[in-house]
Amino acid sequence: MKDSQVYGNVYIAWDGTDDQFSRTPSENEIELQPDTRYLHITTNETIGGVRLYDWPDLGVPLVGDMSSDYFSRHIPWNLMDVAYGGAQKNLGPSGLTLVIVRKSVLETHPRDLPTYLDYRVHYATNSRFNTPAIFPIYVAGKVLKWYKDKGGVDEFEKLSIARCAHLYGMIDASNGFYNCPVEGESRSRMNVVFRLPNEGLESKFLADAELQGLVNLTGHRSVGGIRASIYNSMPMEGVEKLANFMDNFRASHS
Amino acid sequence: MKDSQVYGNVYIAWDGTDDQFSRTPSENEIELQPDTRYLHITTNETIGGVRLYDWPDLGVPLVGDMSSDYFSRHIPWNLMDVAYGGAQKNLGPSGLTLVIVRKSVLETHPRDLPTYLDYRVHYATNSRFNTPAIFPIYVAGKVLKWYKDKGGVDEFEKLSIARCAHLYGMIDASNGFYNCPVEGESRSRMNVVFRLPNEGLESKFLADAELQGLVNLTGHRSVGGIRASIYNSMPMEGVEKLANFMDNFRASHS
Repeated sequence: MKDSQVYGNVYIAWDGTDDQFSRTPSENEIELQPDTRYLHITTNETIGGVRLYDWPDLGVPLVGDMSSDYFSRHIPWNLMDVAYGGAQKNLGPSGLTLVIVRKSVLETHPRDLPTYLDYRVHYATNSRFNTPAIFPIYVAGKVLKWYKDKGGVDEFEKLSIARCAHLYGMIDASNGFYNCPVEGESRSRMNVVFRLPNEGLESKFLADAELQGLVNLTGHRSVGGIRASIYNSMPMEGVEKLANFMDNFRASHS
Repeated sequence: MKDSQVYGNVYIAWDGTDDQFSRTPSENEIELQPDTRYLHITTNETIGGVRLYDWPDLGVPLVGDMSSDYFSRHIPWNLMDVAYGGAQKNLGPSGLTLVIVRKSVLETHPRDLPTYLDYRVHYATNSRFNTPAIFPIYVAGKVLKWYKDKGGVDEFEKLSIARCAHLYGMIDASNGFYNCPVEGESRSRMNVVFRLPNEGLESKFLADAELQGLVNLTGHRSVGGIRASIYNSMPMEGVEKLANFMDNFRASHS
């Protein structure tokens, strides 16, 4: 928002503040103003653990930050003008951003931006305007081949649903010991966020989990709680191990 | 030049066009206009194979692109406000840029740039405003430690002088079979550029060299000829092997 306001007239088409960012909007909640050029969406949000479940088809093209869930879901390309995302969640090592741009967007008049920020330059030079980030690109290529060999987005979408269903099922069957603040369809398939009855138990949960090799479960520093990030690279075995731990922890502490 | 003109009033303080970029200027050839904020320099230029030998001390701070020779020479920090460079020559894997900024520069009023291009943001966040390029940073850390263990810039400056002296010596002793278009002090210590009597011989030189494992010797596509890039990672043995090959090639073809 802050950066784009420098370059154009920008407004918030839907605001999740009142719901503490615990859900994403349905299409009919989004309020577009006349002459809107595009609608920016973030298809998965890792702090709150929410995902966009309803792709807005409102007559304006979508520009989507898909850093945290591309390659785990099908994309309605007919609605999208630009999809972009940092590599480090579902694609490869950090230091690389994948940008998919509709060709017609490249024909629009550019703003006065540094050359490097002009997508037309990258298109014209096959993404080699400068020396690119070779290692992250190399590894991303390996990952993409692996995705293809395993069955592509179809398969990884299925796996993502299975992974998160296992954890949300455990949370919802815990009689309130575990509590996910995110509402039904908005629940992220990549970042399962939940709380325990109090912060003391959360600290103990994290410490005990670490002893069993279950790490990086701390919620984002801005919200606290627990967060299980289960990107494409997480095997079902990891999810099952966490679910078993959660079950045992609840049995000993509730 | 092109990008900076969008943001400010920029001019060329010395122009190497007439000399086909075969040398860099001495300090007294640089013509500064009144109210100049800084002088941008490129301390080594890889296409022409030239280096800046005379650090301009003209009463304005220097901003230097040192991509292709930092960590191979001492820097007069009293003259520099900003030194920057891509990692991929003398620091580590591509996908990383090292920027050294004088603190007082961070206090100047910024232009309307995207947040990411504001050095103050990177300073305030310890270079972790976003997820950085972890792997290139990790490897760069290893390289810096290796530099330190080996004797630091002192040692790598000595090595760079020894490497290039070996090749320039071979060229200058070749009775004109090899010809370096760059004048004395301007000769790069990182990129030794030379020509053979004709392009046919240059092609044969490159093909024969490759058979002996001497690769990546093709001059930049914009100028042709031969270019031996001998960055800090090139051992003296590699230089000696190339010099021996050059000697033998000349003996068979002159």
